[in-house]
Amino acid sequence: MTQTILVLNGPNLGRLGTREPEVYGAETLADIGAQLEASAPELTIDLRQTDDEAELISWIHEAVDRRLPVVLNPAAFTHYSYALRDAAAQLKQAGVPLVEVHLSNPHTRETFRHSSVISGVATGVIAGFGAESYRLAVDWIQRSLG
Amino acid sequence: MTQTILVLNGPNLGRLGTREPEVYGAETLADIGAQLEASAPELTIDLRQTDDEAELISWIHEAVDRRLPVVLNPAAFTHYSYALRDAAAQLKQAGVPLVEVHLSNPHTRETFRHSSVISGVATGVIAGFGAESYRLAVDWIQRSLG
Amino acid sequence: MTQTILVLNGPNLGRLGTREPEVYGAETLADIGAQLEASAPELTIDLRQTDDEAELISWIHEAVDRRLPVVLNPAAFTHYSYALRDAAAQLKQAGVPLVEVHLSNPHTRETFRHSSVISGVATGVIAGFGAESYRLAVDWIQRSLG
Amino acid sequence: MTQTILVLNGPNLGRLGTREPEVYGAETLADIGAQLEASAPELTIDLRQTDDEAELISWIHEAVDRRLPVVLNPAAFTHYSYALRDAAAQLKQAGVPLVEVHLSNPHTRETFRHSSVISGVATGVIAGFGAESYRLAVDWIQRSLG
Amino acid sequence: MTQTILVLNGPNLGRLGTREPEVYGAETLADIGAQLEASAPELTIDLRQTDDEAELISWIHEAVDRRLPVVLNPAAFTHYSYALRDAAAQLKQAGVPLVEVHLSNPHTRETFRHSSVISGVATGVIAGFGAESYRLAVDWIQRSLG
Amino acid sequence: MTQTILVLNGPNLGRLGTREPEVYGAETLADIGAQLEASAPELTIDLRQTDDEAELISWIHEAVDRRLPVVLNPAAFTHYSYALRDAAAQLKQAGVPLVEVHLSNPHTRETFRHSSVISGVATGVIAGFGAESYRLAVDWIQRSLG
Amino acid sequence: MTQTILVLNGPNLGRLGTREPEVYGAETLADIGAQLEASAPELTIDLRQTDDEAELISWIHEAVDRRLPVVLNPAAFTHYSYALRDAAAQLKQAGVPLVEVHLSNPHTRETFRHSSVISGVATGVIAGFGAESYRLAVDWIQRSLG
Amino acid sequence: MTQTILVLNGPNLGRLGTREPEVYGAETLADIGAQLEASAPELTIDLRQTDDEAELISWIHEAVDRRLPVVLNPAAFTHYSYALRDAAAQLKQAGVPLVEVHLSNPHTRETFRHSSVISGVATGVIAGFGAESYRLAVDWIQRSLG
Amino acid sequence: MTQTILVLNGPNLGRLGTREPEVYGAETLADIGAQLEASAPELTIDLRQTDDEAELISWIHEAVDRRLPVVLNPAAFTHYSYALRDAAAQLKQAGVPLVEVHLSNPHTRETFRHSSVISGVATGVIAGFGAESYRLAVDWIQRSLG
Amino acid sequence: MTQTILVLNGPNLGRLGTREPEVYGAETLADIGAQLEASAPELTIDLRQTDDEAELISWIHEAVDRRLPVVLNPAAFTHYSYALRDAAAQLKQAGVPLVEVHLSNPHTRETFRHSSVISGVATGVIAGFGAESYRLAVDWIQRSLG
Amino acid sequence: MTQTILVLNGPNLGRLGTREPEVYGAETLADIGAQLEASAPELTIDLRQTDDEAELISWIHEAVDRRLPVVLNPAAFTHYSYALRDAAAQLKQAGVPLVEVHLSNPHTRETFRHSSVISGVATGVIAGFGAESYRLAVDWIQRSLG
Amino acid sequence: MTQTILVLNGPNLGRLGTREPEVYGAETLADIGAQLEASAPELTIDLRQTDDEAELISWIHEAVDRRLPVVLNPAAFTHYSYALRDAAAQLKQAGVPLVEVHLSNPHTRETFRHSSVISGVATGVIAGFGAESYRLAVDWIQRSLG
Repeated sequence: MTQTILVLNGPNLGRLGTREPEVYGAETLADIGAQLEASAPELTIDLRQTDDEAELISWIHEAVDRRLPVVLNPAAFTHYSYALRDAAAQLKQAGVPLVEVHLSNPHTRETFRHSSVISGVATGVIAGFGAESYRLAVDWIQRSLG
Repeated sequence: MTQTILVLNGPNLGRLGTREPEVYGAETLADIGAQLEASAPELTIDLRQTDDEAELISWIHEAVDRRLPVVLNPAAFTHYSYALRDAAAQLKQAGVPLVEVHLSNPHTRETFRHSSVISGVATGVIAGFGAESYRLAVDWIQRSLG
Repeated sequence: MTQTILVLNGPNLGRLGTREPEVYGAETLADIGAQLEASAPELTIDLRQTDDEAELISWIHEAVDRRLPVVLNPAAFTHYSYALRDAAAQLKQAGVPLVEVHLSNPHTRETFRHSSVISGVATGVIAGFGAESYRLAVDWIQRSLG
Repeated sequence: MTQTILVLNGPNLGRLGTREPEVYGAETLADIGAQLEASAPELTIDLRQTDDEAELISWIHEAVDRRLPVVLNPAAFTHYSYALRDAAAQLKQAGVPLVEVHLSNPHTRETFRHSSVISGVATGVIAGFGAESYRLAVDWIQRSLG
Repeated sequence: MTQTILVLNGPNLGRLGTREPEVYGAETLADIGAQLEASAPELTIDLRQTDDEAELISWIHEAVDRRLPVVLNPAAFTHYSYALRDAAAQLKQAGVPLVEVHLSNPHTRETFRHSSVISGVATGVIAGFGAESYRLAVDWIQRSLG
Repeated sequence: MTQTILVLNGPNLGRLGTREPEVYGAETLADIGAQLEASAPELTIDLRQTDDEAELISWIHEAVDRRLPVVLNPAAFTHYSYALRDAAAQLKQAGVPLVEVHLSNPHTRETFRHSSVISGVATGVIAGFGAESYRLAVDWIQRSLG
Repeated sequence: MTQTILVLNGPNLGRLGTREPEVYGAETLADIGAQLEASAPELTIDLRQTDDEAELISWIHEAVDRRLPVVLNPAAFTHYSYALRDAAAQLKQAGVPLVEVHLSNPHTRETFRHSSVISGVATGVIAGFGAESYRLAVDWIQRSLG
Repeated sequence: MTQTILVLNGPNLGRLGTREPEVYGAETLADIGAQLEASAPELTIDLRQTDDEAELISWIHEAVDRRLPVVLNPAAFTHYSYALRDAAAQLKQAGVPLVEVHLSNPHTRETFRHSSVISGVATGVIAGFGAESYRLAVDWIQRSLG
Repeated sequence: MTQTILVLNGPNLGRLGTREPEVYGAETLADIGAQLEASAPELTIDLRQTDDEAELISWIHEAVDRRLPVVLNPAAFTHYSYALRDAAAQLKQAGVPLVEVHLSNPHTRETFRHSSVISGVATGVIAGFGAESYRLAVDWIQRSLG
Repeated sequence: MTQTILVLNGPNLGRLGTREPEVYGAETLADIGAQLEASAPELTIDLRQTDDEAELISWIHEAVDRRLPVVLNPAAFTHYSYALRDAAAQLKQAGVPLVEVHLSNPHTRETFRHSSVISGVATGVIAGFGAESYRLAVDWIQRSLG
Repeated sequence: MTQTILVLNGPNLGRLGTREPEVYGAETLADIGAQLEASAPELTIDLRQTDDEAELISWIHEAVDRRLPVVLNPAAFTHYSYALRDAAAQLKQAGVPLVEVHLSNPHTRETFRHSSVISGVATGVIAGFGAESYRLAVDWIQRSLG
Repeated sequence: MTQTILVLNGPNLGRLGTREPEVYGAETLADIGAQLEASAPELTIDLRQTDDEAELISWIHEAVDRRLPVVLNPAAFTHYSYALRDAAAQLKQAGVPLVEVHLSNPHTRETFRHSSVISGVATGVIAGFGAESYRLAVDWIQRSLG
C-alpha cells in the first residue's frame, strides 16, 4: 500500500487560479495536486481545501488517527486559529510530521502576517516558493519516511 | 435585469429583534431587509445572515464571481477573521465595492471593538446609525453604480 | 420536569480519551457526562461537543431562548472567538448563568492561554481541576437555581 | 425656517481641488457644498473650513448653543485634538447629532490614521466615499430629524 | 483526626459585611466560614484573614509544613505580591493543593484585575460565585483527598 | 502695587456654567474668578480663557516676561500640547511658580486623561476639587511669595 | 467636639528631617503636623506614619468606620499597593473625602513614579508643594466640611 | 528675480535670545535670519515665526502655491501636529524641497522628542548644530536649485 | 571594634533548607551565616531574615543610621517593592555600600524575575552563585572598607 | 560550466558535530556539504562558514557580483544583523535567489528567535528539517534555475 | 598642517555605484570623497569604508586619540551597534565633533530605520540629502573649527 | 599544571585607562590582569580583549574545547549579540562556568543597558564593583573548582 500524505489547504485557497487568472495566476490547487502526484508517483497525495475551520480541524484529527503526514497551508488561519494549533499539536505529540507551507513569503507582506500561531507546533516551515513550497514539503516527508 | 446587492451579516446578527425585544429592540434583520427594499425598489436586495465564517466567506466568493456589490456587517468577525479579510480583499482587487457597516459605533464600546481587520480592504465604512447604516451603504452603492 | 443544563465543549475536546490514552488520559467527554449525571441525577445534563464555532454559537442561542444554564469549555476559542463572546453576552443580559470551565489551569501553560475573551461575559470561571471543573460548575448552577 | 446643518472641515481641506487638480482632484469644498445643497434643497448647508483648532472648536460650541446637527471632517485633528473631542462631547451630551466623515478610508493609509480621538464621542462615522461621505451624512441627519 | 483545610483571606476581606451592609452585602467572612463548616462537617475549616502580606505568607509556610490544603483569596495581593507567589509555589512543589478563589469575577472589573501573579502556581482557580467560590473549592479539595 | 497672578484656562473651559447649567453646573469661570478675588483680595487675579493654543502660549510668555505666577488649567491641551509644555518650561527655568490645576480628578476618567505632558514642568499639581482647585493654587502661590 | 482629620503617611516618610538634615532637609513629619495644627486650630490633626502596608490599611479602615476625612501620602505604595487602593475605595463609596498628597511632584522624577494606583479612588490629588501639599489638603477638607 | 526661501519657525522659537540671554543664549531668530542673508546674499530669506499651528500651516500652503523651498523648524509641533504633516506632505507631492531643522539634537533630550511626525514627509533632516542647522539647510537648497 | 555588616534577607528565604531538603537543598540561612563568619572572622555578620516588607525597611533605616554596609537578598521584593527601593536609596545617598545578591540567576527563570526595582539604587549586583553570592558580597565590602 | 551555489553559514555553525557529538549530534557542516554535493552532483556547492558578520556580508556581495544563488543560514545574526539584511536586499534587487534556512524550527525555541530581520528580503524560508533544510533549498534553486 | 576629517562609512556602503549603476546610482564613495575634497580643499578628507564593526570602532578610537572630527555614516549599524555607540560616546566626552549622516531619509523607509542608537551620542544628524549630507557635515565641521 | 581562566573583554574595553585618565580612570585592562594574577597566583589568568564579535566568539569556542572557565565582560555586546549568546550557551551545556561581569552597574545607566542577552546563559552575574567585579568572579571560579 502506498503512503498517503494529506495536503490540507485553508480558507480562500480554493480560489487559486479559477477566477481572474490575470490577477491570481493560472495555477489552481488541482494543478498543484497534479504536480505533487507527478513528482512523487509512489505516494498517494490526498489534497483537500476548505474555508471551514472545523473541517480543517477534523482533517487534522483524521491525520492523527491514521498517522498520516500532513502538509498544511493554513492560509489566514495562520494568524489566529488557536483551535487549529491545538489540533496540530496532537500530530507533534504523536510523532507525525507536519509541514507548514505558504505560497508567498509572509514576511514580505502586511505586519499581521509576520506571526504564526501554527509554527510553534509544526515540524518545520517552508514559505515563499509558490507551488514549489508544497513539493519541497512532500519531498522532505517522503525522505523522512524513507 | 435589476442590480443585485449582497447584504451580508455575520455572527449573532440573526438574533436581532427576534427575542426579548425590550432588550435588543424590535427590529429584525428581515425588517432591515424590507426597509432596504422599500428605499431602493429598483435594486434586488439579497440579505443573508450566518454565524459561520466559512459560509460568509463563500458568499464573498460568490460576490467576486458575480461581481456583486457587497454591504457587509462582519459583527464580531470584524476583530479577528483574517480569513474573511482575505476573501474581501478579492473584491478590492476586482474593483467591486465593499461597504463595511456596523449598527452601533464601535468606538463607544469595548476597546477590542476599536480595531477592525476588515476595514483595510473595504471601500468605505459606515458605523453607528443602526439600520440606517445599511440604507446609507445601499444608497451609496446605487449612486456609485449609477 | 427536570432542569436541563447545557454542557458545551469547543474544538478538539472530542478527542479526549478516545485516542492514545497514554498521552491524553483515558477519560472521554462521555465519561465526564456520565459523571455529571451521576453526581446530579435530578438534572438533565445535555453534553455536546463541536469543533465548529457556528454550531457552538447556535447552542448558546438555544440556551438564551430556552433560558438554560450553560457550562462552557470554549477550549481554544477562549483566546480569540469574539463571536462566541457576543453570543455568550446574551446569556449575561438575560440573567442566565454561564460558567466558563477549563480542564487545565491556563495560567500554567503558554502565554497566549493567559487571556480569555469569554471571561468578561461569564458569571464565573473554574479552571484547573480536570473533569471536576465541570462537576463544580454543575454543582454551583444547581444550588444557585435551588 | 429651514433646518441648518453645519458641515465643518478641519486643516488642509481648504486645499481640495484649488491647486494642482491633476494631483488632488478637481473637486473643491465649495463643489461639495454645492452638491449637498442640490441633494438636500430643503436644508441650509452651512459649510465652513479652517486650519485653526480654536476656530473649529468655536463652531462646535455654536452648534451646541444653536442645537445644530454637525457633519465634521476633522482631517488631521482626528488623530490628536482632544480639545476638539471635548468640544464635540458636548454635542453628545446635548443629544445633537455629530457625524464624523472622511473622504478617504483611513484604514488603508498610514498607521497613525487608524485611530481617532473623535469617534468615541460621535454619533456615527462615515469614511471612504469621497464627497459622498458628506452627502450620506447629511442624508442621515435629514432623516433622523424627519 | 479530621482533615484541616486552611481558608486564607488577604487584605480588606475582613471588612466583608461588617460595615455598611447596604453597600457591601451582609455576609461576613465568619458567615462564609460557618457555611463551609456546615457544608463539610467532616472537615476542620481553619478560616483566617489578614491585611498583612507577611502574615499571609507565614500561613502558607504553615500549610507547607503541615501539608494542609489551602483555599486562598489573595484579594489585591493577586495583582502584585510575588512574595506570596513564591510562598505558594512551595505548595505546588510539595504536592499540596492550592485553590485560588475570588468572590467576584475579576475579568468584569478594572483592567489591573485581569492578571494574577498567583494563578501560575495554583492548582486551580474559581472566581465569580461569591461565597460559593469558597464552597466549591472546599468541595473539590475534599473529593480530591477522598 | 499688588501682586498679579495669571489664572489661565484652556479649551472649552469658557463653556463652564454658561449653557445648560443642569448639565455642566451653574458655576462659570467668571464665578471662579470672583471667588478667587474674594478669597485673596490683596492679589490681582487676572483670569483668562482661550480655546487657542497660540494665545495660551503667548500668555505663558507674558508670565515669563513679567515674572507672574501662573495657575494653569490646560484642559485637553494637558494630553498633547508639547508646545504649551515648552512654553511652560520657561517658567520653571525662570523660577516662576506654575501650578497645574484640574476641576475633576483625571485619574477617574478616560485612560487618555491619565497622562499629562505639562506636569513634568509644573511646580505642582492640584486636581479634583472643582473651583477649589484654583483657590488652593492661589493660596499656595500667595504664601510661597510670602 | 472638634473634627478629626487623619493625616496618614506611608513608607520611609518617618525619615523626614530626622537624619542628615543637610541631605533630606530639616523638616520632620512632626513639624508638618505642628504646622497643620497651627494653621487649623479648630481641627484635630491625627498624624501617623508607618512603613507597614497592613497598618496603613487598618488606619484607612478606621477612617471608614469613623467617617474621618483622610489626607494620605502613600509614598512608594503609590505605585503598586492595590491593597491600599482597595481600602481607599471604601472611603469613596462611603462619601468620605480622601486627598492624595505628595511632597515632590512625581512627574519630575523617575518614570515609575508617573503612575499612581491610588489616584483613581481619591477625591483629589495635590503634589509638589512640600509640606504645603498637606496644608492645602487640610484646608480643602475643612472648607468642604464647612 | 532672486530665489526666495521660506524659513519657518514653530512655537516658542520667537523667544530665542530675547529674554534671559544667560539662559537661552543671546542669538535671536532675527540674528539667525541675518546670518542666513549674509551667507547667501543671492537669495531672499523670508524668515517667519509663529506659535500658531494654523498660521504655520498657511505658510506651508503658500510655499506649495508659490513653489518655494522651505526650511522648517517645527519646534514642539514636531511631536504631534499631524495637521502640519499633512500640509508638508503637499510639498513632497509637488516636488518642492522641505528641510526639517532643529537647533538641538532631539535624541539627546527627553524621550518624547525622539520621534517626529514631520520627518516622514521631509526631504531631509538637519539637527543639532544650533543656528548652523539653518545655514546648512539653506546651503543645500541653494545648491539643489543649482 | 569590629566592623558589622548587615546581611538582610527577604520573604521566604527563612525556608531555605529547613524543610524538605531533598527539594530545596540542605543549606539553611544559618549555614550561610556561619560560612560568612568563617570566611571573614574579623567582621561581625549580622544576618537577619523577614517576610515583612516593613521590617526589612526598618533594617535598612538602621543601616543608614549606623552607616553599616548591607548585603541584601530582596527575594520576591526585588520585583515590586518600591518602598524597599526608596529605603535603599538612602544608603546610596549616604555613601554606604549596598550589594544586591541572589542565590540563583534570575535571568534563567520566569520573565517577571528579569527586572529589579532595587538594582537602580544598589552599588552592585551579584547573582547566581548560591551561598557564594553572599560570600563574594561580604568579601568585596571588606576590601572596599579596607 | 556548472552552476555554483553559495551555501553560507553564520556564527557558531562551525561547531556542528565537531565537538561533543553526544550533545550537538555527529553531523558536521562538512557532512552537510557532502550530502548536498551527493544530492546535486551537477552543481558546485560552495559551502562556507564564518562567525564574522563582515565576512558573511562580503560573501553576499560576491554573490551579487557573480549572480550566484545563495542558501543562507544566518544563525544568530537572524535576529539583529540589519547589516546582513542590507547586503541580502541587494540579491533581491538583482533578482538572485536567496533562501534563508534554519536547522531547527525557531518558533519552538526562545521568543527572541521568533523574529527574523532577514526574512523580509529573502525569496523564501525553510526551517526545522535539520540538514534537510539545506537540501530542500538547493533542490528548489536547482529547479528554479531550470 | 591641514586639518584632517575622518569620513567613516559602515557596512554595504562600499557597494555604492560600483555595481548595477542603473539600480544604485552611479556615484561611488570615491566620488563622494572627491567631491568633499573639491569642496574643502584646505582640509584633508580621510574617507574610509568597512563592513566590519570592529574596524569601524578602531577608527573611532583613532579619532579620539588624534582628536579628529568625524563624519559617520553608520549604515545598518545605526540600528543595533551599541558597541559603535560606546566608541562614539568617547568623542562626545572628548569634545570632538561627530556628525551622523545618512544618504536617504530613514523616516521615509522601513520602521526599523526610524530609530538610531548612535544619535544620542552624536553632535548632530544630517539625513536625506544623498552625497550632499556628507558635504554639509564637512562644511559644518570646517566652520565650527574655524 | 595550573588552572587557566579566560578573562575575556568586549568592545571598547581596550580603551580603559590608556587615554585621558582624568576621564576614564587610570586603571587599564593590563592593570586589572595584574591584580587578578596577584590575587590568585596559583591560577593562570589569560586576559584578552577584542572589539571583534567573531574573535570573542572564537575565544568562547576555545574555552569550550579546552573546558576553561570564563570571566566575560561583554561590554556593549551584552545588549544585542545573540551570536555571542549562542557561543556562550555551549559553555552552559558543557558544564563550564561562565561569569558575566560589568565594571559599572548597568541598572544605574541608560535604559538600553538594563537588559542582557547574555545573562540567560551565564552561571552568574557580577556588576558594579569596578575591577573588583573581575576579582570576585575569579575568586568564585577558583573556589568552585577547588
